[in-house]
Amino acid sequence: MSIAQILGARIAAFSFADVPDAARHWARIGIIDTVGVTLAGAPEPCARMARAVATPSTGDALLFGRRERIRPTDAAFVNGTAAHALDFDDCSNTLGGHPSAPILPALFALADERHASGHELLTAYVAAFEAQARLAHAVNFYHYDKGWHPTATLGVFGACAGSARLLGLDATQTASALSIAASFASGVKANFGTMTKPLHVGHASRSGLVAALLAREGFTAGDATFEHRQGFLNVYNGAGNYDADAAVNHWADPLDIVEPGIAIKQYPCCGSTHPAIDAMLILAAEHDLKPQNVERVLSYTHPRRLQHTNRPEPNSALDAKFSVQYCVARALTKRRVVLSDFEGEAYAEAAIRALMKRVIAEPDPQADQQPDHFGAEIVVEMRDGRRFAKRVASAAGRTSANPLPNSRIEAKFLDCAQHVLTDAASTDALAMLWRIDELDDLATLSGLLEAGLRN
Amino acid sequence: MSIAQILGARIAAFSFADVPDAARHWARIGIIDTVGVTLAGAPEPCARMARAVATPSTGDALLFGRRERIRPTDAAFVNGTAAHALDFDDCSNTLGGHPSAPILPALFALADERHASGHELLTAYVAAFEAQARLAHAVNFYHYDKGWHPTATLGVFGACAGSARLLGLDATQTASALSIAASFASGVKANFGTMTKPLHVGHASRSGLVAALLAREGFTAGDATFEHRQGFLNVYNGAGNYDADAAVNHWADPLDIVEPGIAIKQYPCCGSTHPAIDAMLILAAEHDLKPQNVERVLSYTHPRRLQHTNRPEPNSALDAKFSVQYCVARALTKRRVVLSDFEGEAYAEAAIRALMKRVIAEPDPQADQQPDHFGAEIVVEMRDGRRFAKRVASAAGRTSANPLPNSRIEAKFLDCAQHVLTDAASTDALAMLWRIDELDDLATLSGLLEAGLRN
Repeated sequence: MSIAQILGARIAAFSFADVPDAARHWARIGIIDTVGVTLAGAPEPCARMARAVATPSTGDALLFGRRERIRPTDAAFVNGTAAHALDFDDCSNTLGGHPSAPILPALFALADERHASGHELLTAYVAAFEAQARLAHAVNFYHYDKGWHPTATLGVFGACAGSARLLGLDATQTASALSIAASFASGVKANFGTMTKPLHVGHASRSGLVAALLAREGFTAGDATFEHRQGFLNVYNGAGNYDADAAVNHWADPLDIVEPGIAIKQYPCCGSTHPAIDAMLILAAEHDLKPQNVERVLSYTHPRRLQHTNRPEPNSALDAKFSVQYCVARALTKRRVVLSDFEGEAYAEAAIRALMKRVIAEPDPQADQQPDHFGAEIVVEMRDGRRFAKRVASAAGRTSANPLPNSRIEAKFLDCAQHVLTDAASTDALAMLWRIDELDDLATLSGLLEAGLRN
Repeated sequence: MSIAQILGARIAAFSFADVPDAARHWARIGIIDTVGVTLAGAPEPCARMARAVATPSTGDALLFGRRERIRPTDAAFVNGTAAHALDFDDCSNTLGGHPSAPILPALFALADERHASGHELLTAYVAAFEAQARLAHAVNFYHYDKGWHPTATLGVFGACAGSARLLGLDATQTASALSIAASFASGVKANFGTMTKPLHVGHASRSGLVAALLAREGFTAGDATFEHRQGFLNVYNGAGNYDADAAVNHWADPLDIVEPGIAIKQYPCCGSTHPAIDAMLILAAEHDLKPQNVERVLSYTHPRRLQHTNRPEPNSALDAKFSVQYCVARALTKRRVVLSDFEGEAYAEAAIRALMKRVIAEPDPQADQQPDHFGAEIVVEMRDGRRFAKRVASAAGRTSANPLPNSRIEAKFLDCAQHVLTDAASTDALAMLWRIDELDDLATLSGLLEAGLRN
């Protein structure tokens, strides 16, 4: 049997009984996080432009952040772009990218149309996550380093696998769907730093869904499209640069969504600033620090990461996302770092600019002793002469060994959702998402997201 | 300036005055041929399934072969798949593929919506053809040999360039569109021999159009997406396997559509059978051959091409397309080889099976002396002892040095069009297509194609 056939059989046979409690938990987290960032991303220019190109169409699939329902393929495109618009969605070290953003928009769209249950959605999502991770094991990190954007080039298989499962395709149809998807994989890193990066995700989510829909119609594709001489592995990675066996070995052993699991971004800014923000928040809370009593803050970041985050005077909201001085000052002042800190002229407020002058960013002198480059240290010198220091080895939420407490996941969701939903609807949506596997009809969820819009 | 910027500027500045008479002629031929094969391909299963997935939608763009108008992006997808469904569309040696099938469906769809003129269509088509060819010069034939399907992976740039021109995008927007398209390029040869091969063309045509529409909205993309370290050239071909300068040098010097030009397939069967068919048709006409007077036919094909065309007893319509014995027998019997010869049970007719027994296919003993592998020889031994021989160096229409006479282009078009149009509408459409550059509104053409349907 070929890789497509083996994966097709496993995806088609995957059932809710194959989703252990830990996977259900992480699937809920992934869904909550993706719904939140998609709502927050919906008003972004890239998502608005994607909508302009994808509409008008008619259908049952909700456009997040809008009172508009369109065709599932179009919704996957627009919501997929929105999901990654802020680069605030969940991460996977296996993928070298963002695992849920390509998968879930296709599934939400299909679920709206089919009135699928929470059980069906979770089953499809976990199967999709696993198929995507298996293929990542086969091609990474050569694939990533070469210049492919794995969130897109592997995400298309995730979207395809999940759609195939939710559509109830059989093993043969699912194999065909994956083989069709192999001819839809695209996205190069040369487009990073532009709107085309989130577009990759919308394109992958839509294309994976289209592949599954074509397979349902009886569309034919190659039998061995991954391992063929001119197939995905050889054409995208090249001979010697992949491990075909890894695509089929260790399926669900363990499920990748559980181990190594997903990483949740806490703050809507560059990941390299996150450990310093964590350390600053801990010190501020522990010692009830007031900015006016602080003489100066010394922020030590690994030199590799300080390179792009040493921005003492950011001159735009985007620039502020990469300024460790700004992020640390915000953490000290507000004891949280949220979306509104990177909107409009927030970065230019007089009070924060004054405080930033007292935030000194330096390369971490202990960088050599760190096992990796994910740590940071904050030292606060008080006007009364006291001195507090905190070192964090890596930001919370970045590995499943160091998960975010639920309270922080909820705070992030509410901050995101409230961008477009009323406060009450945001709270209701969060409650519904925590018990998503009990929903009989996911149109209930999208109905709430639609009815609860602020405007 | 980057490759995308240089090509963007050239495409945006390209006007009808830049299309010399020879290019107008070849553009008309390419359009006639593509309209014909798209009409003939529309009823094929792959195109029907693509339609099922792409609809419903509402819009002005005609679905060829149907009384249905949908959104241009959806129409490009379905008509693009139909255009390549029979693998009967035009070819380009520069591309190593089919140059017009990815470009024209996007342009026809946009033209319907915008009521574009024939001048605008021809200008966009020739500019698109040229941009696509320039990029092919940069990456071929490494690109082709590696396993990419250039009709798709380069066709997406043709569709994008043509759409950008027809939309009237400026140089900067066109550069962005091409850079977005670089993240949409996909299609591997592992899917050859299945419905996914024509699907590549629909996907490329649609994706190129989407890239142009996004750029019109102001979507951003990388500045140097082709030559970037992690851009199209390095990621799709790899360092050392491309010539970046070739993408920007010799623009329109000469126009690729004129020199080397496009190849028109005369017969709806494997290209390797074409020179033998040509030779057989010439002999049959010259000597007014009747099958019952023929003792036997010796068919000599280059060994490389006989390998897949030596099928003395084809057992399906598809198999018959690769049987040189069947094709030569058809040419002798009917003095033409047309679509209906490869439909239903035509391949199994008793008379043709009897004649095929007297068609002996052998490797060409003069293969060593041929400059290439495009030739064939037919020797006919008559029952009265006469013997006729004809050698052709390459099938007519395969190079611009050996073009098909207009009468054969017209015969092919009518054979194709009559699959779905009435005879009268087919003739009217042909007449209109010959003077397409005089049309003020291309909706006139699609109106005729819609009104003239047989059913």
